[in-house]
Amino acid sequence: MTAVDVRPTVTTGPITGSRKAYRGELGIPVREVPLSNGEVVTLYDTSGPYTDPSHPLDLQRGLPKLRESWIADRRPLDGAVTQLAYARAGEITTEMEFVAGREGVPVTLVRDEIAAGRAVLPANIRHPEMEPMIIGSAFLVKVNANLGNSAVTSSIEDEVDKMVWATRWGADTIMDLSTGKRIHETREWIMRNSPVPVGTVPIYQALEKVGGAAEELTWEVYRDTVVEQCEQGVDYMTVHAGVLLRYVPMTARRKTGIVSRGGSILAAWCLAHHRENFLYTHFAELCEILRAYDVTFSLGDGLRPGSIYDANDEAQFAELTTLGELGRVARAHDVQVMIEGPGHVPLHKIAENVKLQQEICDSAPFYTLGPLTTDIAPAYDHITSAIGAAMIAWHGTAMLCYVTPKEHLGLPDRDDVKAGVIAYKIAAHAADLAKGHPGAQAWDDALSDARFEFRWQDQFSLALDPDTAQAYHDETLPAEPAKTAHFCSMCGPKFCSMRISQDVRRYAEERGLGESEALSAGMAEKSGEFADRGGTVYLPVVDA
Amino acid sequence: MTAVDVRPTVTTGPITGSRKAYRGELGIPVREVPLSNGEVVTLYDTSGPYTDPSHPLDLQRGLPKLRESWIADRRPLDGAVTQLAYARAGEITTEMEFVAGREGVPVTLVRDEIAAGRAVLPANIRHPEMEPMIIGSAFLVKVNANLGNSAVTSSIEDEVDKMVWATRWGADTIMDLSTGKRIHETREWIMRNSPVPVGTVPIYQALEKVGGAAEELTWEVYRDTVVEQCEQGVDYMTVHAGVLLRYVPMTARRKTGIVSRGGSILAAWCLAHHRENFLYTHFAELCEILRAYDVTFSLGDGLRPGSIYDANDEAQFAELTTLGELGRVARAHDVQVMIEGPGHVPLHKIAENVKLQQEICDSAPFYTLGPLTTDIAPAYDHITSAIGAAMIAWHGTAMLCYVTPKEHLGLPDRDDVKAGVIAYKIAAHAADLAKGHPGAQAWDDALSDARFEFRWQDQFSLALDPDTAQAYHDETLPAEPAKTAHFCSMCGPKFCSMRISQDVRRYAEERGLGESEALSAGMAEKSGEFADRGGTVYLPVVDA
Repeated sequence: MTAVDVRPTVTTGPITGSRKAYRGELGIPVREVPLSNGEVVTLYDTSGPYTDPSHPLDLQRGLPKLRESWIADRRPLDGAVTQLAYARAGEITTEMEFVAGREGVPVTLVRDEIAAGRAVLPANIRHPEMEPMIIGSAFLVKVNANLGNSAVTSSIEDEVDKMVWATRWGADTIMDLSTGKRIHETREWIMRNSPVPVGTVPIYQALEKVGGAAEELTWEVYRDTVVEQCEQGVDYMTVHAGVLLRYVPMTARRKTGIVSRGGSILAAWCLAHHRENFLYTHFAELCEILRAYDVTFSLGDGLRPGSIYDANDEAQFAELTTLGELGRVARAHDVQVMIEGPGHVPLHKIAENVKLQQEICDSAPFYTLGPLTTDIAPAYDHITSAIGAAMIAWHGTAMLCYVTPKEHLGLPDRDDVKAGVIAYKIAAHAADLAKGHPGAQAWDDALSDARFEFRWQDQFSLALDPDTAQAYHDETLPAEPAKTAHFCSMCGPKFCSMRISQDVRRYAEERGLGESEALSAGMAEKSGEFADRGGTVYLPVVDA
Repeated sequence: MTAVDVRPTVTTGPITGSRKAYRGELGIPVREVPLSNGEVVTLYDTSGPYTDPSHPLDLQRGLPKLRESWIADRRPLDGAVTQLAYARAGEITTEMEFVAGREGVPVTLVRDEIAAGRAVLPANIRHPEMEPMIIGSAFLVKVNANLGNSAVTSSIEDEVDKMVWATRWGADTIMDLSTGKRIHETREWIMRNSPVPVGTVPIYQALEKVGGAAEELTWEVYRDTVVEQCEQGVDYMTVHAGVLLRYVPMTARRKTGIVSRGGSILAAWCLAHHRENFLYTHFAELCEILRAYDVTFSLGDGLRPGSIYDANDEAQFAELTTLGELGRVARAHDVQVMIEGPGHVPLHKIAENVKLQQEICDSAPFYTLGPLTTDIAPAYDHITSAIGAAMIAWHGTAMLCYVTPKEHLGLPDRDDVKAGVIAYKIAAHAADLAKGHPGAQAWDDALSDARFEFRWQDQFSLALDPDTAQAYHDETLPAEPAKTAHFCSMCGPKFCSMRISQDVRRYAEERGLGESEALSAGMAEKSGEFADRGGTVYLPVVDA
């Protein structure tokens, strides 16, 4: 893959208590959780072949080219190879079938949402290794994890490891935001080994090419960088084409100015040249390039608020208007588009963001960072922002860009990546529940059943993070019998409410009574029997 | 204090970067954060004398009796010593003045909210050590931390340490939920050393007195336990008087039955005797006891939902109706009342909880556990529930009962207590911002200013958890110069957007221009100058 001696190692093997399985002719990957009662719960799986012990891992070679024949077997439509072009022509691609199976929805819904521009299926024809997924408010809320080294820290090995690690815990896409040395090489390792779509911000690499001086950037350097990344297989690209010259002064009265890296680079360029953002003036040309690879636009929010004070201000919404305009241009070129949003937004200003975005941007998928709902908790911004993320996703955001505990403080390490992904899977799932997404609650129900029935191992297996759940349990009750104990250390045996509830239920069942009947109709005469049994029905002391 | 050799040790000393200070004649405690630019930010402080290096710590003796003379100097009103009785009589107590100063609101607001039953000021006359605080939707959202040993684990020393630790990080009240041995002694240590109100669930101790057999419970045993705890100084008590016999069958079809410990004990008693809950039938007598000490009722939600599936069901709302009725009885006895709520509730069902509670319970303060917005993440339930907590507090919940990462898995240790408190301070503050609480945003603004101006030490000092914020920063940039560097490891020097924004602003200032003027009116002619300066204005390489 490269002459340099890079030998990443990554985490492999099934998630504890789960097994990899594949569904249907397309081999749609799932995480199966076999339970002690014989049931099997099937969960959405983003982890790729890494959790399949039968997969022969070879990072040098890269993942199998799942989509190679699918891509080869179809023809461009007037030069376009995008899922949008096919959807508009009424065609159902294999990628659409794959995501329909993955989401458990009709393939016509997938096609129609893509055709309407309300969903995107980011899938560069040069990234055949990827397992297709869909981003749109009609589907499960997705989570992106940002990776990438900087000039200060991190290595290629670390980033490949973090990519696999992030998808293991549920990242639906990853973005390689490397800004340091060896950007191309880092990305190549990630592309060839990523089971999920990969996004980038091409301006970062373009800036490296001009020695880090924003005013030296040119359309030509940028264009060549985009082509280079298209060729490598990048599935979606953040393009800050909405940072217009006239919007930059709107940020002058802000508390935290421009906090988007790309936004600040473009703002600097605009000011230095006193000319309009070249990404805006050359946008149609950019569309032509992306159209030939099916790279999806992620129209960047270069002017997103970086503090509670700056939320929902003139600069932010001015840029959103331009993103709406650019989205229409992109779709006119058959290019898929999502719109980036939030940053720091207090709870009461979140809903307005989605409402405006949906109106202005023709219901294009919204892809938001957080938002962080307060500025006061550096080191806990995965939590300040999971709160906002759950809220904004409930209101319609299609994909959430995670925030790690290191936000504002440093580059995330492996533990931070996991913490960020888990917090955001929680936010996404909470939103799926609130939206009433079909099937979402089955996971909660299965875990609650296991909890009520004291199937501890099943609880761990069904957890978003089985390892930590079991470790926490074992800290106070490590012995093996505690895995079947009808209580935990929190309340101890006498005070376990679930135990008491369950005893009442068992009492009814033993007597062949429906539960309600047992508890209501027959209660008067039962009370004597209950007392005769010496109270053990209600407050048994369990010998663990 | 007791003959047994218990010698707890606790964490003392100021929070990193902060200093303890006192305001006004009443000596209202505050956390002052002196900044490098000469400003001082003043924050609400719950940590008691433990963060005051000049305070002579003596756990054996307990904290100074701040309220002793205040209590001694006033007369009961027809036997009542409650803040509610005084407020209704138009009297302003010293406690009311204290909380008005603490919250920065007029004392008449405090008195009127208490008089109307919309706020409570839990302050047992037998707990003179406590620093008064107020719970009501017109005030800052409060956070409670649950402590307490169980039959399985933990010791008195651990619990006293956790109490101090929880208040250090911002717990506004603590509940001692001990169920194991030495309940009375554990509580005595906590009472005498707690700077915040202490709540309990007396049924736990009553149950221990009858050997753990729920059906052996009697009103007399319970009453004596309540009196014992009133004498010790407990400030509020959870009483599950709303678990009526006829509501128990409503839980039979639930996924997780009754998950409240107290609720399940009372349900078991009701079923065993086929009689109405003795807490309900003796409620007026209970009111008379609490009235004589000014103990606040926390009317327990014994039938709260323990899973997403069970949220907002018939049992939950039936009990709420009874809690509303009991609240009116309590207030008729001049006893202060809050109402407990939630548990597991998906996002879209949260607002309804507050709306109903406010209607049914005459706007009495709502005190909710979480709610957890999904069941799938054991080990991360501080996050699943911080999401719900922020939302429910925004809608009007007055106090949030924290959830730790160990929820459902085990008893929280010191680290878990901190994780829970921090997550809930975030939720509470996010709600304060969303409610537009006066002054709440000043904290965010101060931290954002520090962030934008690269005052790293000020950022750490202003953080909810300065130690962790600094530790995370130092993981990647430990050297002292990095504390003043104009970038962090996340983006490195060239890509730091805040740096770029700031350079633009400085450029304007140096030329004596208003920022907007500089950026808009004068921009055309400035662009040439910008270029002449070789781009360093926009993308300076900082030598750190």
